[in-house]
Amino acid sequence: MSLFERLKAAAPAEWRSYVDHAFVRGMGDGTLPEAAFRTYLVQDYLFLIQFARANALAAYKSRTLADLRAAKDGLSAIVDVELDLHVRLCERWGLSPADIEAAPEHQATVAYTRFVLDCGMSGDLLDLHVALAPCVLGYAEIGRALAPDGVDALDGHPYREWIGEYAGDAYQAVAANASRHLDDLGARYLGPGRFDELAALFGKASRLEADFWQMGLDAAGARR
Amino acid sequence: MSLFERLKAAAPAEWRSYVDHAFVRGMGDGTLPEAAFRTYLVQDYLFLIQFARANALAAYKSRTLADLRAAKDGLSAIVDVELDLHVRLCERWGLSPADIEAAPEHQATVAYTRFVLDCGMSGDLLDLHVALAPCVLGYAEIGRALAPDGVDALDGHPYREWIGEYAGDAYQAVAANASRHLDDLGARYLGPGRFDELAALFGKASRLEADFWQMGLDAAGARR
Amino acid sequence: MSLFERLKAAAPAEWRSYVDHAFVRGMGDGTLPEAAFRTYLVQDYLFLIQFARANALAAYKSRTLADLRAAKDGLSAIVDVELDLHVRLCERWGLSPADIEAAPEHQATVAYTRFVLDCGMSGDLLDLHVALAPCVLGYAEIGRALAPDGVDALDGHPYREWIGEYAGDAYQAVAANASRHLDDLGARYLGPGRFDELAALFGKASRLEADFWQMGLDAAGARR
Amino acid sequence: MSLFERLKAAAPAEWRSYVDHAFVRGMGDGTLPEAAFRTYLVQDYLFLIQFARANALAAYKSRTLADLRAAKDGLSAIVDVELDLHVRLCERWGLSPADIEAAPEHQATVAYTRFVLDCGMSGDLLDLHVALAPCVLGYAEIGRALAPDGVDALDGHPYREWIGEYAGDAYQAVAANASRHLDDLGARYLGPGRFDELAALFGKASRLEADFWQMGLDAAGARR
Repeated sequence: MSLFERLKAAAPAEWRSYVDHAFVRGMGDGTLPEAAFRTYLVQDYLFLIQFARANALAAYKSRTLADLRAAKDGLSAIVDVELDLHVRLCERWGLSPADIEAAPEHQATVAYTRFVLDCGMSGDLLDLHVALAPCVLGYAEIGRALAPDGVDALDGHPYREWIGEYAGDAYQAVAANASRHLDDLGARYLGPGRFDELAALFGKASRLEADFWQMGLDAAGARR
Repeated sequence: MSLFERLKAAAPAEWRSYVDHAFVRGMGDGTLPEAAFRTYLVQDYLFLIQFARANALAAYKSRTLADLRAAKDGLSAIVDVELDLHVRLCERWGLSPADIEAAPEHQATVAYTRFVLDCGMSGDLLDLHVALAPCVLGYAEIGRALAPDGVDALDGHPYREWIGEYAGDAYQAVAANASRHLDDLGARYLGPGRFDELAALFGKASRLEADFWQMGLDAAGARR
Repeated sequence: MSLFERLKAAAPAEWRSYVDHAFVRGMGDGTLPEAAFRTYLVQDYLFLIQFARANALAAYKSRTLADLRAAKDGLSAIVDVELDLHVRLCERWGLSPADIEAAPEHQATVAYTRFVLDCGMSGDLLDLHVALAPCVLGYAEIGRALAPDGVDALDGHPYREWIGEYAGDAYQAVAANASRHLDDLGARYLGPGRFDELAALFGKASRLEADFWQMGLDAAGARR
Repeated sequence: MSLFERLKAAAPAEWRSYVDHAFVRGMGDGTLPEAAFRTYLVQDYLFLIQFARANALAAYKSRTLADLRAAKDGLSAIVDVELDLHVRLCERWGLSPADIEAAPEHQATVAYTRFVLDCGMSGDLLDLHVALAPCVLGYAEIGRALAPDGVDALDGHPYREWIGEYAGDAYQAVAANASRHLDDLGARYLGPGRFDELAALFGKASRLEADFWQMGLDAAGARR
């Protein structure tokens, strides 16, 4: 069993509150209010900037060239590719770069991003990657779940771009790779008495991700 | 004009949203629901632990023995005195140590504490102390405002212990000292083009403190 | 076998180069040139300041109140007690506080202290304490070795104060406690594939401690 | 006057000990023993890995996308380009990748690299870049000084590759850019009372760079 599977099994309620959140179900069946998605999209851009910093932190914390290169690739992917992709996705939803830059970080964005950065800074590389796992690996799981018949079957779906992005082969490969990296870090740093601490951290991060979805619903006046 | 006064003047809406929050007014006139106060009290204990870490971070970041000793004193005050005081205050409100320890950190607690720690780690000592100022200095200002006729006049007030603590001479002296320390750090580290960045940080921290009060009201089903 | 014993067994050459250094032997038989000891004493004061920062870092990195209190106690012991003791020891060797403050940090001091701080910041609490172990636990071992007939038998020995300090019951208890803390951290954080990395770190820290002794000899024009 | 020029003017002895070190003069007139250069080359590779971490730290500490991108570019340049260049340079001097990887970090390498990382972590972005300036900007100054008649005139010079690299237009542009970045950071973060602290930091870093050259000479049994 992979470390990721063990962590999910140890925090089932928190995990479910996140991957099966009303926001996610609303994306899946297309009933999610557009206002909820737009709020999410802007905050997710602000999230990405902090996520880039988390990858930079991983690079700083690396003790092998392999870890350093992996973290550098993650940082480059965000700064060179994902931020631009996000700007374009925002544009298609009627949000200009000026809209994004003018947006203050929501409490939910501050809470999850700074929690991850603090876990990573106060702990080790394994803590950092466990705190990031709900984001990196959870999005792949959600993407797959929302595209049960494959990405091509999403034609006409109002959230096909988002779902297609995370259900697609490219992101699924990124996630599979991240899961293997987590196992590799676990082999090095997971002492016999540490799993419960990691599981608590993973559960807390999952809950903060659920709060991030909820922020979108709240902004649209929708109910949980 | 002290740096603290300049920061407040630069972020008036955020500052007002915090020091004049409905939670504060409710404490002042005694109408605050007890459930709101109890929720606040437990989260404030969890806050204190992170606040201790912020003082430890200040000690780590110190480059003079004077800064190091000041930060060490702050850390000792929390770990040796304030945590115990807090436990006793909780007990008088019917909250056992077990209640406190069983409580998960609320999103509002995570957001403010980790924001402060991240400001301090990614910035310098001045950033750290500016991010802490709404807490350290704001509580003194709120305490004074809620005891306009002095601490002795609070007899019979349902929140006299809390108000008396922060309106009292001991805490007022701590705050006056912290304000002078901020000015001293400003004299060293406040470059000509930096004030706006610090004011934005201060405003954001004030907003996160306002959210912390709001958490108490939300828990009691009260309205903003 | 304690983790400390395992680490020593895994880096025997580095450990020997440190605990059996010519500087140590010279202290033991009283032949160490006074100039070497004076240089060491001044640099050891500068070392202590960074060592205080390492304890502050441990407090920042703590996730349990027990770890936080232990680190705070360590920090207080240095700032409130050891720095003053050191100033008095320096005075008895003819070194004024002004001499100490005017001294620039030697390369050997920078190398070991910043290595420890970087290990601790980039790694976890276990890394930090392993990097500190040659100092904390090594001094207890050296003290015992240089006082084979007990502290009382040191009467008239030119280095009796230094040896007595570290051979004495108080410091031996500190070291025993630190060794138990290391075992406790190991139980939590020592994954199956991590020992070699820790042993390399321990060996490197031991070598940097040996270089610290050598700095004293070099300053006195003495040979290794 | 640029901040870099001001810093050099404030620490003239330390700066001279570095840019006019016997190792540098020996490279310039071709009399530097090859053994000294080889030792330097291997340690400089280990230095680069820590330098990459310093750039990652700068990315983590960034608060604007512009700072983040600049730090990311710096990290990528080292990990994607410079490390490989260095391996090839080592090969031409008869040093295999295995030789490099087997080499332990010298005390001088540990001292300067960890000092820089600690300055950056305990301070702000300006501290980090000031600590790096002797390396980034100093190599450009040394390169220019050793190629007074231009890079083309170095034909046949035993150290033409090294000198040509740093005297060349590409590196000179990197350095000019880094100097402008330092001025930009200074405009933001250089408070009225901070210059002396920065100058002390700059002087110390310069001295540690001088020690890095000296390590090469010592290894070759050469004299300062």
